[in-house]
Amino acid sequence: MGMRKVAIIGAGMTKFGEHWDRGFRDLVIEAGIKAIEDAKLTGNEISAGYVGTMAPGSLVGQEHAGALIADYMGLNPVPITRVEGACASGSLALRQGMMAVASGMHDIVVVGGVEKMTDLSTADVSEILGGAGDQEWELFNGITFPGLYAMMARRYMHEYGAGPEMLAAAAVKNHRNGAMNPYAQFQKEITLTDVLNSKTVADPLKVLDCSPITDGAAAVVLAPLDKAKDYMKNPVEIVASAQASGTLALHDRPTLSGIPAAQIAAQKAYAQAGMAPQDIDVAEVHDCFTIAELMAIEDLGFFPRGEGGKATLEGKTAIGNGRVVAVNTSGGLKAAGHPVGATGIKQAVEITWQLRGQAGKRQVPDAEIGLSHNVGGSGATAVVHIYRKVGA
Amino acid sequence: MGMRKVAIIGAGMTKFGEHWDRGFRDLVIEAGIKAIEDAKLTGNEISAGYVGTMAPGSLVGQEHAGALIADYMGLNPVPITRVEGACASGSLALRQGMMAVASGMHDIVVVGGVEKMTDLSTADVSEILGGAGDQEWELFNGITFPGLYAMMARRYMHEYGAGPEMLAAAAVKNHRNGAMNPYAQFQKEITLTDVLNSKTVADPLKVLDCSPITDGAAAVVLAPLDKAKDYMKNPVEIVASAQASGTLALHDRPTLSGIPAAQIAAQKAYAQAGMAPQDIDVAEVHDCFTIAELMAIEDLGFFPRGEGGKATLEGKTAIGNGRVVAVNTSGGLKAAGHPVGATGIKQAVEITWQLRGQAGKRQVPDAEIGLSHNVGGSGATAVVHIYRKVGA
Repeated sequence: MGMRKVAIIGAGMTKFGEHWDRGFRDLVIEAGIKAIEDAKLTGNEISAGYVGTMAPGSLVGQEHAGALIADYMGLNPVPITRVEGACASGSLALRQGMMAVASGMHDIVVVGGVEKMTDLSTADVSEILGGAGDQEWELFNGITFPGLYAMMARRYMHEYGAGPEMLAAAAVKNHRNGAMNPYAQFQKEITLTDVLNSKTVADPLKVLDCSPITDGAAAVVLAPLDKAKDYMKNPVEIVASAQASGTLALHDRPTLSGIPAAQIAAQKAYAQAGMAPQDIDVAEVHDCFTIAELMAIEDLGFFPRGEGGKATLEGKTAIGNGRVVAVNTSGGLKAAGHPVGATGIKQAVEITWQLRGQAGKRQVPDAEIGLSHNVGGSGATAVVHIYRKVGA
Repeated sequence: MGMRKVAIIGAGMTKFGEHWDRGFRDLVIEAGIKAIEDAKLTGNEISAGYVGTMAPGSLVGQEHAGALIADYMGLNPVPITRVEGACASGSLALRQGMMAVASGMHDIVVVGGVEKMTDLSTADVSEILGGAGDQEWELFNGITFPGLYAMMARRYMHEYGAGPEMLAAAAVKNHRNGAMNPYAQFQKEITLTDVLNSKTVADPLKVLDCSPITDGAAAVVLAPLDKAKDYMKNPVEIVASAQASGTLALHDRPTLSGIPAAQIAAQKAYAQAGMAPQDIDVAEVHDCFTIAELMAIEDLGFFPRGEGGKATLEGKTAIGNGRVVAVNTSGGLKAAGHPVGATGIKQAVEITWQLRGQAGKRQVPDAEIGLSHNVGGSGATAVVHIYRKVGA
C-alpha cells in the first residue's frame, strides 16, 4: 500500500484526578505542551492535530474543541480536528493522526485526549455517559453503564464459574500499579476484602469494581518513522492500528461474556503487526469495570476464554510476574482514572514510557512490544494499537 | 508524497427540513443507503466510514454516532468514526475519509453528515449551537451566533459602505436556487423587500438573513481514483482538501470583515489543486447568515475585498450569469437548510451532482470544476475542497 510508517516522538499528560481549579482548556493545553516539549519541537513544526473528547458540549458547554486547542496553544492556523467514539475517543484520535502522517498529508501531528467531568453532578455525568450506549433502546429505558457491565459480569460468572474475588483481583492489581504512578488519580493500594466489602453499585459490581469520574488530558506527538530519530533518540513505532464496530445495544450481541468488536480489532492488529498475543510485553486495557479487564485479556488472546479471572487472581497479569504480559501498569482506568476522551491517549503515553524505560517503579523489565485496547460504550467501538521500541 | 488520489463514486441525501416523524438514525441511514446505492456497492465492499455531526449528545442524547451508524446500516464490524468541528463537521469528516483512502488504509469509505435539531426548543438549540464559539468568553457572557455575525456585518458595512440590500441579495438568490432544489427546506422565492421588511434578529441581520434550524443528512462514497471507474462512469475527483484554524473568539481576530482561516484554507486548496479562483465553475459556500456569503466569496478570491456585496446584488453569483462562478446552487444554508453536521457533506453532494450534470433545473452549464467552503463557529475552523469532473 506504500503507507509511511509512523512513530511517537513525544508524550505527556496531566495528573489525572479532580481538578476543581482548572478548566477543560487548561488541562488539554498542559498535556499538549508537555508532549511537544518532550519531542523538543517548536510550534511551527506542527502541521496538524487531533483531539479525542467524548462530551465537552454536555459537560462544559464547549463543542469545537479542535479549534479551541489550536487557538489556545498558539498553533493557528494549524488544523486540529476533534474525533469522538465515546470512551474510545482517544484511540480514534490516535488512529486519525496516524492516517494523517501515513497518507503523507502531514508530517508532525499532535494527538490529544481530554475530558473535564467534575463540573457537573454525578447523576448528570452518568446520564451524559449513557450517550455512549443506545439512547433509544437502553438509556431511555433507564439503564446506566454500571448496569450494562453488571449484566456482562453476571453472564461471565455464570458461564465460567467465576467468583467476585476474580473481578476484585483486577482492581487490587490496578491499585497496586496506580500507587506507583504519580499521574494516577488513586495512588493507594487496596485489598480483595476492601473491594468485596465495598458498596454495591449494580450487582455484582461494587464501587471498587468501577472506574471513577476524572478530569485529565494526555497527548502524544507523531512523525514519519524515517524522520523520528531526528527528534528523539528512542522513538516508539506504531506497528498496528485496528478499529472495529459492534452492536450499539447490548441486547443485540451474540455473547455477553466477551466483546466481539475487541476480538476483531485484536485479530486485525496482530495481523498488521505480524505478531501474536505472546509477543506483547506490556498492555493497557480498557478496565472501565473490573469485568471489562477480564474480558479484555481474553478478547486479546492473552488467556483462553473463561480463564482471565483465574489468571488475574493468580497474579499472572502483574508487573514482574515472569509471564509474558503485564496489564495496566498505569493503574488502568480503575486506579489511574478515566477522563473518558483522554484514556486512549493515556494508554499510548504509558506504553511509550514503558518502551522507553521511563516508567519508574512500575517499569516492566525489558519491555519492547506494547499494546493498547480502548473500548467505546459497552463494546460498540473497539480500537487496538500495537507499539514497538525502535531498534527492538 | 505518494498519496493515492481520491474520487467520489456515490452521493445521496435526505430532504432537508423539519422531520418531526423521524429520528437521528433514520435520517443518516437514508442518506447513507442512497449514496451506497448510487455507487452500486454492496455493504461488504465498504471498509470504513466517517460521520460529521456537531452535537447529537446535546440534541438527541446520543453520542457514539459512528458505532450507531455501523450497527443500524448493518455494516458491523466496519469501523465508523465521528468527527466534529461545529458547523464544519461534515467537511472534516470528508477530509478524514480522504486521508483514510489516500493513506492506503482503506479503499471504499462512506462519509456522512447529519443533524437532528428540531427535537428541542429554539432557545435550547441556540444555546447548544453556541458551543461552536468560545464558551468561556462569548456564550457565558450572553452572545448568540446571530449576534456574532451581526457584529461582522456591521463592520463589513462600515468598512466597505455596503447596504443591507447587498446582504439581502444573497438570500434572494439562494431562495431562487432553493426553489429549484427538491431537497431544499425552503422551495420558494423571496424578494429583496421581503428580506428587508422581515423582523430583526440581531441588527442588521433580519430573520431572512439567517439560515434555519433543520433536520437532515447527506452522504458520499469515496474510492481510490484508479478504481473509481469500476464503480461509476462519471466519478468526481477531489483535487484539494485544506483546513485551517482561526481564533475561537471573535474579539481575538485581526479583522471582522473576513475570515482569516477561510482565506488560508482557500490559498492552500488552490495551491494543492494548481488552480485559481477563476477556474471554479460552481461553489457551495457557508452562508449561515447572508453576511457570511459576502465574506466567503471574497475570502475565496472570487471578488476583491469589499466587492462581494455589490457583485451579489448585481447577480454575478447567480446560475447562468455568464461569469465564472455560480454560488450556492443548492440554495445554500439559507434556503436548502442547515442541519449543522450535514451541511459540509450536502455541499459535496451538490457539487457532485453539478459536475455530473444531474442538478436538474439548477444545473450550471458545462460545470467541470467545483469548490466547497465550510466554516465552523464564527470562523475558527474553515475547510475548502476542490472537485474536478473526471476527464475534465
